[in-house]
Amino acid sequence: MSKALPKKSENYSEWYNELVKRADLAENSAVRGCMVIKPYGYSIWEKMQRALDDMFKETGHQNAYFPLFIPKSYLSKEASHVEGFAKECAVVTHYRLKNDPNGGGVIVDPEAKLEEELIVRPTSETVIWSTYKNWIQSYRDLPLLINQWANVVRWEMRTRLFLRTAEFLWQEGHTAHATKEEAVAETEQMLEIYATFAEEFMAVPVIRGRKTPNERFAGAEDTYCIEAMMQDGKALQAGTSHFLGQNFAKAFDVKFLNKENKQDFVWGTSWGVSTRLMGALVMAHSDDEGLVLPPKLAPIQVVIVPIFKGDEQLAQISEKVNPIVKELKKRGISVKFDNSDKQSPGFKFAEYELKGVPVRLAIGARDLANGTIEVARRDTKQKATYQIDSIVESIVNLLDEIQENIYNKALQFRTDNTAKIDNWDDFVKILDEKPGFISAHWDGTSETEEKIKELTKATIRCIPLDAVDEEGVCIYSGKPSSRRVIFARAY
Amino acid sequence: MSKALPKKSENYSEWYNELVKRADLAENSAVRGCMVIKPYGYSIWEKMQRALDDMFKETGHQNAYFPLFIPKSYLSKEASHVEGFAKECAVVTHYRLKNDPNGGGVIVDPEAKLEEELIVRPTSETVIWSTYKNWIQSYRDLPLLINQWANVVRWEMRTRLFLRTAEFLWQEGHTAHATKEEAVAETEQMLEIYATFAEEFMAVPVIRGRKTPNERFAGAEDTYCIEAMMQDGKALQAGTSHFLGQNFAKAFDVKFLNKENKQDFVWGTSWGVSTRLMGALVMAHSDDEGLVLPPKLAPIQVVIVPIFKGDEQLAQISEKVNPIVKELKKRGISVKFDNSDKQSPGFKFAEYELKGVPVRLAIGARDLANGTIEVARRDTKQKATYQIDSIVESIVNLLDEIQENIYNKALQFRTDNTAKIDNWDDFVKILDEKPGFISAHWDGTSETEEKIKELTKATIRCIPLDAVDEEGVCIYSGKPSSRRVIFARAY
Repeated sequence: MSKALPKKSENYSEWYNELVKRADLAENSAVRGCMVIKPYGYSIWEKMQRALDDMFKETGHQNAYFPLFIPKSYLSKEASHVEGFAKECAVVTHYRLKNDPNGGGVIVDPEAKLEEELIVRPTSETVIWSTYKNWIQSYRDLPLLINQWANVVRWEMRTRLFLRTAEFLWQEGHTAHATKEEAVAETEQMLEIYATFAEEFMAVPVIRGRKTPNERFAGAEDTYCIEAMMQDGKALQAGTSHFLGQNFAKAFDVKFLNKENKQDFVWGTSWGVSTRLMGALVMAHSDDEGLVLPPKLAPIQVVIVPIFKGDEQLAQISEKVNPIVKELKKRGISVKFDNSDKQSPGFKFAEYELKGVPVRLAIGARDLANGTIEVARRDTKQKATYQIDSIVESIVNLLDEIQENIYNKALQFRTDNTAKIDNWDDFVKILDEKPGFISAHWDGTSETEEKIKELTKATIRCIPLDAVDEEGVCIYSGKPSSRRVIFARAY
Repeated sequence: MSKALPKKSENYSEWYNELVKRADLAENSAVRGCMVIKPYGYSIWEKMQRALDDMFKETGHQNAYFPLFIPKSYLSKEASHVEGFAKECAVVTHYRLKNDPNGGGVIVDPEAKLEEELIVRPTSETVIWSTYKNWIQSYRDLPLLINQWANVVRWEMRTRLFLRTAEFLWQEGHTAHATKEEAVAETEQMLEIYATFAEEFMAVPVIRGRKTPNERFAGAEDTYCIEAMMQDGKALQAGTSHFLGQNFAKAFDVKFLNKENKQDFVWGTSWGVSTRLMGALVMAHSDDEGLVLPPKLAPIQVVIVPIFKGDEQLAQISEKVNPIVKELKKRGISVKFDNSDKQSPGFKFAEYELKGVPVRLAIGARDLANGTIEVARRDTKQKATYQIDSIVESIVNLLDEIQENIYNKALQFRTDNTAKIDNWDDFVKILDEKPGFISAHWDGTSETEEKIKELTKATIRCIPLDAVDEEGVCIYSGKPSSRRVIFARAY
């Protein structure tokens, strides 16, 4: 057997990196910063995609596909947008290779230089708004509610599997509206969909909030976000939804005839979540034995391991197990009966623990005699003996219970690691001693925000949507403040 | 209303281009050769993806994701592979933009030059086999059955929506096996899956065959293909499945310990279909009024158009229609009740004809009185009056009938336009007068194949898998031949 994982408590970072690789989620590729998403990891991503896609479609969105490449001039049309992305763009400059006449092997053909360089999309606002110009003439063409599942590239210098990669997979919604109110409502609706997905599928509680101007998306007037807490107390931004105002409409001259028969610029939103969610899922729940997956996203929800000697015993066990497998599948539960004789039960137990399978059933000769089956939960590591006759009902209920328990545990952890802090010394101290979310007053200036970041590496994660008005003074400057914000160190 | 489509019989090419745009399938983007797939077109592609993906998974394949970028040196490792793709590669050379200090706007930062250029994948054999090297040690790791849904880029000089675009969407399967026999069986299995998909879902009959050495995939030992006939008599290659032998295993040093405890190179296959299938779907069935979609791929299978004056009449009709809509949805049929009062019924009829909706129901006051409903088929343009009480059953059956009819019509067309030809003059003549598939003898040499292409623009589409041994002489050289092959002009 391979050696144990690094301990989460000893080296969180190494624990994460190793776990992602060992559990067959992803690995680094030969291309700097680009990952390979392995089949097991990809099957979790497919479940995420399906759940999100269903929610997008239920709220009236349709999928479409826009080009991978963006002409350099397009990226430059929205000033703050190019400012935000220029530093990390993969640039296509040529369209052909050839054999080096001087024997240098295959080289770029200098005669095949593009007239205008193409940027591999870091996000698609520019290419999409240049298209919307032709699609929108009147208020009757609005709202336009479109989503795209795609790969994007941002040439990050320091990368980590799922959390920060040069290429990643995501969805990006891009909508166009006749009024500001509608666009704001869309921005808020999509944030709520992301929050629902995080909480109900990923079992990760999130804080819904708005970014400070400093942390806004390049080109947005307002950025909403959901922020999750990882088990090391750090924050992870799990999804963003941007109110774009009329910025991209103006940059690409997208006007429409409104109901009053007047020309006006269109209002926009964009919103996205990415394979980063895979990282959040791992970091939020897993332990020293491996992944802990919430049942709703687990590729295998139930594994059944027979304890047997010889074919006859296996046949007896199979006779009992096969109807259970069939019935579970009928209920829409993904189940694997691992009857291979190549590995020992102990090896299999460790393997399915590593892979985060929520429920493991084990059944041997004594169970057959007693009409029982052993049930092991991945989340609590509890084992119990169940009656085999009612095992299907028991499992259906247990999966719900596990989903809920994983969420509650994460919520409890967040509660335990969130502090209201009102003076600077405590602020600095808690960040080092018990890192987590800090609810504190801030004077509303970018200067203070940057100073705090410089001194503590903590950033303002968001201004929570449910923050209440409260008189106070800024944790750093002592200036007056009317609401608390959430500070944390972040991924 | 917008003007009529170009006539298929008068200008097939223009008819196709206009139809793809007007039916909201796709349009050209600002980036040369890259298309925008519009929501209606993308929803057909999603249906194709779902059907194919289900078949891949049923046969034991899993999805994964590999990097968009391929280091130039990787592409060069398999000699014939780089030869095949070097002439049409998008090359990334830099990773940053900056503001021109001389005021030239945003420019490529010359200091951010990559040490090794990256190629935007034209296909992923090289990057995947370099990964497989680490995944495969022993026969126990085999077979490895992986598929990827992705975008790829081939810098084509002349492009056409769906048929030939610089960027396109596709799936590419890449499998690894312990024996040659297994790999060949996989190659054949996947070809059969493509053929089944084309015939049962797209309603397009295909010829299953093998390519001549000239037309093989760059790096394959054998290329299998399915060839479909379009309504202008031209052939369209709709899918390919490649037996790679040990070529990529050797190029990337992928060895395994076989059951005899000896090191051997792994055997490979790769196979793919792309958004090109969208073009085939349009070209195979559509007519001068617009798309004709087979029910299994139609985003809207049934549209119901009420003929009404005023809200009261609409309410009466809706009362009758709503339960039908509900029952159809329960049966898994996608149905749209278009009760908008913004357009006339005539306008709606034309719109849904253009969009290829297989069944249109119309219901007005007289129908209500009579307990009837008008049913119009898109494929035959026949209208009939049906009893409203049994309309759901009728539609379920009708959709099956339409699916079958569209296939049979395409099959009949292919039969009518396939000729056995045994002399050169007839060969040349029929290509101009009644283009289609020509079954003819060929002497088996690349020289003859190329000469025929040069003289007639016809290529050998495939050597059909079901070709029978038959003594004959080559249509061009008069040399002996033992089997007929299929010639045609092609897309």
